[in-house]
Amino acid sequence: MKAARPTVLQPGATIGILGGGQLGRMLALAAARLGFRCHVYAAHEDSPAIDVAHAWTCALYEDRDKLAAFADAVDVVTYEFENVPAEAANFLAARRAVLPDPAVLAQTQDRLIEKNFVVDLDIATAPYAAVGSAAELAAAIDAIGLPAVLKTRRFGYDGKGQAMLSADSDPQRAWEGLGGAPSILEGFVPFEREISVVIARSHDGRTESFDVAENVHRDHILKVSRVPAAVSPELAARARDIAARIATAFDYAGVLAVEMFVVRDGATEQVLVNEVAPRVHNSGHWTLDGCSVSQFEQHIRAVAGWPLATPIRFGDVEMINLIGEEVHDAAKWLSVPGAAVHLYGKREARPGRKMGHVTRVLGWSR
Amino acid sequence: MKAARPTVLQPGATIGILGGGQLGRMLALAAARLGFRCHVYAAHEDSPAIDVAHAWTCALYEDRDKLAAFADAVDVVTYEFENVPAEAANFLAARRAVLPDPAVLAQTQDRLIEKNFVVDLDIATAPYAAVGSAAELAAAIDAIGLPAVLKTRRFGYDGKGQAMLSADSDPQRAWEGLGGAPSILEGFVPFEREISVVIARSHDGRTESFDVAENVHRDHILKVSRVPAAVSPELAARARDIAARIATAFDYAGVLAVEMFVVRDGATEQVLVNEVAPRVHNSGHWTLDGCSVSQFEQHIRAVAGWPLATPIRFGDVEMINLIGEEVHDAAKWLSVPGAAVHLYGKREARPGRKMGHVTRVLGWSR
Repeated sequence: MKAARPTVLQPGATIGILGGGQLGRMLALAAARLGFRCHVYAAHEDSPAIDVAHAWTCALYEDRDKLAAFADAVDVVTYEFENVPAEAANFLAARRAVLPDPAVLAQTQDRLIEKNFVVDLDIATAPYAAVGSAAELAAAIDAIGLPAVLKTRRFGYDGKGQAMLSADSDPQRAWEGLGGAPSILEGFVPFEREISVVIARSHDGRTESFDVAENVHRDHILKVSRVPAAVSPELAARARDIAARIATAFDYAGVLAVEMFVVRDGATEQVLVNEVAPRVHNSGHWTLDGCSVSQFEQHIRAVAGWPLATPIRFGDVEMINLIGEEVHDAAKWLSVPGAAVHLYGKREARPGRKMGHVTRVLGWSR
Repeated sequence: MKAARPTVLQPGATIGILGGGQLGRMLALAAARLGFRCHVYAAHEDSPAIDVAHAWTCALYEDRDKLAAFADAVDVVTYEFENVPAEAANFLAARRAVLPDPAVLAQTQDRLIEKNFVVDLDIATAPYAAVGSAAELAAAIDAIGLPAVLKTRRFGYDGKGQAMLSADSDPQRAWEGLGGAPSILEGFVPFEREISVVIARSHDGRTESFDVAENVHRDHILKVSRVPAAVSPELAARARDIAARIATAFDYAGVLAVEMFVVRDGATEQVLVNEVAPRVHNSGHWTLDGCSVSQFEQHIRAVAGWPLATPIRFGDVEMINLIGEEVHDAAKWLSVPGAAVHLYGKREARPGRKMGHVTRVLGWSR
């Protein structure tokens, strides 16, 4: 099950990145700062990460010849998204170290397996139940109650593959709307806020988490992250501990993000894990401009076998996603003192597409 | 003489960079953050900038076909070093906007023309005289006195093309050691410190200078820059004003660096301009990690016709060059809290070769 651990990479080594989106692009930029070359494996020629890579392969994950040549061309393989097919990851792992371990993909590509994994660590989640049939859906609603959220077990992101069920919904129809795919029903959590912890873990088991981010979604897509989250130091410590326990349980190498709900129950606040992303994460983009080390560099350090850095945050930070046509707001942000503008080089500003982001550090002193 | 001013670039446009060294690499990384693509024109395949460029041309500056194809492939041309042959720059400028204007190259490639330009602006320099013959050398020594420094007018950098003349030197032999090339004799300045100002100027004539850096050289190569320089606010303002006047006199677009000596004359301190570099500069590398905007991003903004950012410095900053075998010190720096390590991806650690640098921001608060 375990992939071989790579030796420590030398500067000039080549890091293979599966996936060519903005996360891969920012990983490649971080790798370049440290003297590494990157080879991107992506489906399309116009992938954002290819613009800044030393080499690239445009191919499908089913193309064994291309995968084998890619493995030969790089010193370590990592990925920018969790939906890399397990077969491709395992095929590569037989030829070259793949970090994080592909076993993590199998555990996070399926919401049911992921939630079971988290619960087995004695970490709280919203109530959930597997839904594989109409009868199971009815039983799940009986057990969990409504409102609740029906989510496909696989391939959901940014609200895709989800349906909200309330008292006046037709559950059966909602499930058919998701194609009748294997799903889970999750109790709807009346959360006070959404937070996330981005954490890096090195080969040798050390962890460094960034300060807790507070996240605001719009239409199921992250719109704003603020750091630090408006939670007590005690709760922040608990959230970071949860992330560390998950990373350690995975025997993880790289950067991982844990999304959580903060739920108030009378005087006490509870943290419920919502989702685990085995990769760099949108809610960690603030680290590029608001911290002494970015999540992207931490990931590269971890997969290179290099020591992690100690993150030092510069101040209160706000990260704002530029989604779809909002990319044109970049022009305005360019003139705001202290604002850092990032654009991903995507040609077409489709609705819901993440085109760039802006970071502002508040409370700076000269 | 003037090249056509480019229109404002759109995200996704391609910036052509002449030169493939670490300055080009860091320019390309900054351009990528803003959503631009880069096309690097360099002599060698293993140039650091090529690793992170979308496209590249490996050719000599005399190759007109390659230059023409390069001009056609990009939306604007800029350069990472001042020794781009004027003929190549002018050839390109007839086809595509070249920024900064190639006229600046002609004025800064020759120490005599550069110094005359600065003095014509009523800005002080060390005393100097042209040396084109043995007789002129003798006359220059008579006029300026010894010790003095003999420097070739063209192609000198990092102490190359220089000879120190003291009372017991054989001036004629020193000049022959420089190949008898057209030179200048400069009075040796017993400076208190060396400082530099890195300044950006936009198409529309706005300037933004970074805080003054104090520089320590070792074997004629920059070893350490510290910001802010240990000079009075009044002197710092004077230094920044000098840089702004030079940038404005050039009608400059991009980032420019001015190296200066601080000389104490009794109770007063004088600033003498030593050298003008029409490009991003090693003494500005601290801005990558110690400032809200880097010199590289400012240069890209300027050549793209975008507004300049207002630099906000994070604290006291120290930048240390990793030269030759010192590249191996990077491993140690990786574990120093708050230290940011940059490696340029150069294969061979030759003596005197700049392999990377480290930035530390001191006085951070979490």
